Amino acid sequence: MPPKPKHLLSTQSLKKSEIEEILALAKEMEPYARKEKQGTRMKGKILAALFYEPSTRTRLSFETAMKRLGGETLSVTDASTSSISKGESISDTAKVISQFADIVAIRHSQNGAAKEFSLGSEVPVINAGDGVSQHPSQALLDAYTIKKELGKINGLTVAISGDLKYGRTPNSLAFLLSNYNVKFRFISPKELKMKPDVIVHLNRMKIPYEETTKFEEGMRGVDVLYMTRVQKERFKNYREYERLKNVYVLNKKLVQKVNPKMLIMHPLPRVNEIAQDVDGLKNAAYFRQVENGIAVRMAIILTRLL
Amino acid sequence: MPPKPKHLLSTQSLKKSEIEEILALAKEMEPYARKEKQGTRMKGKILAALFYEPSTRTRLSFETAMKRLGGETLSVTDASTSSISKGESISDTAKVISQFADIVAIRHSQNGAAKEFSLGSEVPVINAGDGVSQHPSQALLDAYTIKKELGKINGLTVAISGDLKYGRTPNSLAFLLSNYNVKFRFISPKELKMKPDVIVHLNRMKIPYEETTKFEEGMRGVDVLYMTRVQKERFKNYREYERLKNVYVLNKKLVQKVNPKMLIMHPLPRVNEIAQDVDGLKNAAYFRQVENGIAVRMAIILTRLL
Amino acid sequence: MPPKPKHLLSTQSLKKSEIEEILALAKEMEPYARKEKQGTRMKGKILAALFYEPSTRTRLSFETAMKRLGGETLSVTDASTSSISKGESISDTAKVISQFADIVAIRHSQNGAAKEFSLGSEVPVINAGDGVSQHPSQALLDAYTIKKELGKINGLTVAISGDLKYGRTPNSLAFLLSNYNVKFRFISPKELKMKPDVIVHLNRMKIPYEETTKFEEGMRGVDVLYMTRVQKERFKNYREYERLKNVYVLNKKLVQKVNPKMLIMHPLPRVNEIAQDVDGLKNAAYFRQVENGIAVRMAIILTRLL
Repeated sequence: MPPKPKHLLSTQSLKKSEIEEILALAKEMEPYARKEKQGTRMKGKILAALFYEPSTRTRLSFETAMKRLGGETLSVTDASTSSISKGESISDTAKVISQFADIVAIRHSQNGAAKEFSLGSEVPVINAGDGVSQHPSQALLDAYTIKKELGKINGLTVAISGDLKYGRTPNSLAFLLSNYNVKFRFISPKELKMKPDVIVHLNRMKIPYEETTKFEEGMRGVDVLYMTRVQKERFKNYREYERLKNVYVLNKKLVQKVNPKMLIMHPLPRVNEIAQDVDGLKNAAYFRQVENGIAVRMAIILTRLL
Repeated sequence: MPPKPKHLLSTQSLKKSEIEEILALAKEMEPYARKEKQGTRMKGKILAALFYEPSTRTRLSFETAMKRLGGETLSVTDASTSSISKGESISDTAKVISQFADIVAIRHSQNGAAKEFSLGSEVPVINAGDGVSQHPSQALLDAYTIKKELGKINGLTVAISGDLKYGRTPNSLAFLLSNYNVKFRFISPKELKMKPDVIVHLNRMKIPYEETTKFEEGMRGVDVLYMTRVQKERFKNYREYERLKNVYVLNKKLVQKVNPKMLIMHPLPRVNEIAQDVDGLKNAAYFRQVENGIAVRMAIILTRLL
Repeated sequence: MPPKPKHLLSTQSLKKSEIEEILALAKEMEPYARKEKQGTRMKGKILAALFYEPSTRTRLSFETAMKRLGGETLSVTDASTSSISKGESISDTAKVISQFADIVAIRHSQNGAAKEFSLGSEVPVINAGDGVSQHPSQALLDAYTIKKELGKINGLTVAISGDLKYGRTPNSLAFLLSNYNVKFRFISPKELKMKPDVIVHLNRMKIPYEETTKFEEGMRGVDVLYMTRVQKERFKNYREYERLKNVYVLNKKLVQKVNPKMLIMHPLPRVNEIAQDVDGLKNAAYFRQVENGIAVRMAIILTRLL
């Protein structure tokens, strides 16, 4: 009987010691992620990137992480060509794919798909985003970025703005950071407030948080402003969207007026919620998140396979 | 003048000595397929997986086989983006692709496409399924699985059930096993009886076979039950389909009642023709077929390129 | 501050010394392209092939070039699954992708897309075809083929036929060859005449050229006939297309009658503008262009990264 594979399905399932291990290992991986060194520790290993829902960025990040560790990749990028589309159960697909690969990163439009896949898999499964549920590798790279940029996580006030209801990044990050001594501000339209399971969890953990619909007010005094897109398609009332869309746009002038030192983050792609004139600010960290993402995903892979 | 490349286009074209060579080599390849060893014999070689018709399972199996031998892969997965769709002939495409790759695995919706491709190719071509015609690597892994599970092929009675008219697996397997001393049972609806060229061939070779529409009767006393899907879309009469669909479903109770020791096989994906309660039986071999498939495809690649 | 990456965006931007360097290096790369040797110079390097517009041939050529140099590849083949389709700017995409890869080959349906991508990229960008604009790696392999087949470029008369207005190959090649002492014949329907910027450039450089609509007359006495497809979809008048289509078809009889020794080239895929009976002529070089393409793309990659 082989040992149970070490999946990464959600940030709730991570113990603080596991988070710390990944963040520490990611730091070691930075020279590899920055292309200064070529790794060999995953030589002869194969990562299957199963992207049943498209995400070029996340897929290439995982594939790059594996390749820079000396490993190989298999890619599935088209949902409509999968066995799943022929009526196969996710669990059967998992039994098959885990014969091919040593580790799997799966993206799926369905909540809980990664968990379901893991039940059939003999190899570690990394949830690379499932439905509106979870995106743990993104949350880990976000935490890594905060720690790297600000030197710590404890003691910080973190604002998360945008679509907190349907996004999978905001709740994944909130659960993760709840392992630390932080304060939250959740900035969103009333219709897109933070998911109830996060709120219940924070109450239980006695983590302080405030909820507001006001962007400027929300970002005042915070250490981190984590922005996400307010998604047009979620609104029934178009005029309501138009109104909110305009108050949730960050530009250089607003940063300088309200909170010039806060760390500005975004999971990307951005559309127009961050004006291009913010890019040049040294506290605009969203492109550095991408580089950190490679190192963190290397650490995630290594902690599953070593 | 370079030597003629060694294609694998159909199971009819294989001599028994070639089959035996592939099965023996596949056995040697098992530790590589099982991820216990990493191969190097295909280092510097490239397999092009041209999947003009989708098949995640077969494509990943070939790519895994090549990678675990130390080789590289090129993938084409979208029919609509191919040069063929711009009006290029299959033979022209073959001339081009064989400049890039050392070996090609091709899947195509058109009968005879692999043969046509091979006419233009300077490198070995493996038919990974063309139309309703042939799927020789599947038949080889099926034969390998039978031999591995039951210790021999000679002397066995093999039932093949489901869609024997439009499937490419049933006839590929029947042609292959006709090199051995076997008996066949073909279980199918009247509308989906085994293809005439198989029947003519078995008659000529004096291989005994029976045809039946009755599932239970068909599997009684056999050593192997090879199931395939009865495809709804083939029936003009929907009620006829509904009737047959229900008598072609295997479950644990039926196995235990009729033939508890027979080897149960399926090329996958299964939809509901095998109930999940069969999966736990030790004679349910369909997921082991997948693992065997990697070893057999390694052997197929090696016998083309060494 | 890292040095500015060495992009390859158009043939106009290439100095003659750079062309000569690439052609010389490509010659050295031939044994690798012909699969006689396996390279290692790109070990640990990653090429991202971003094909937002489909082109199996060009993508696989770049990927093969990288792999035969010992490097790795990342592939994006589906425009509709890209971040660009989610509303991300090309420049943002470039900032992200250049964290993953060491070099990028981009194909895009939009004129100027490669240039725009290069503005955001920290790594070298190769234009693998953008809109109706440019396709410099094709022009380089064409020039390489001419030199290899005929021993020189200087002193030759080169006819380019077909769609000179919307094709990106004809103008890319004309700009490239204008670095040499050549004469041009441009053979096209009146509606598809060579682009004005090429004409202006040739006048300024005092490079002699003639324009004709007559295929036979155009190819008489030339050293090279470079054919491209006359595209049906460009014509408003269907009968006009039918008339021209028929006079722009090369067959063996025509070659032997008008100019039996001219080098016959085509960027492929051909549809029916070159009859199959031409393929057997020893001066039919279009499939050899494909092999040369690998060596030339190796040289392009090496001159960017070494």
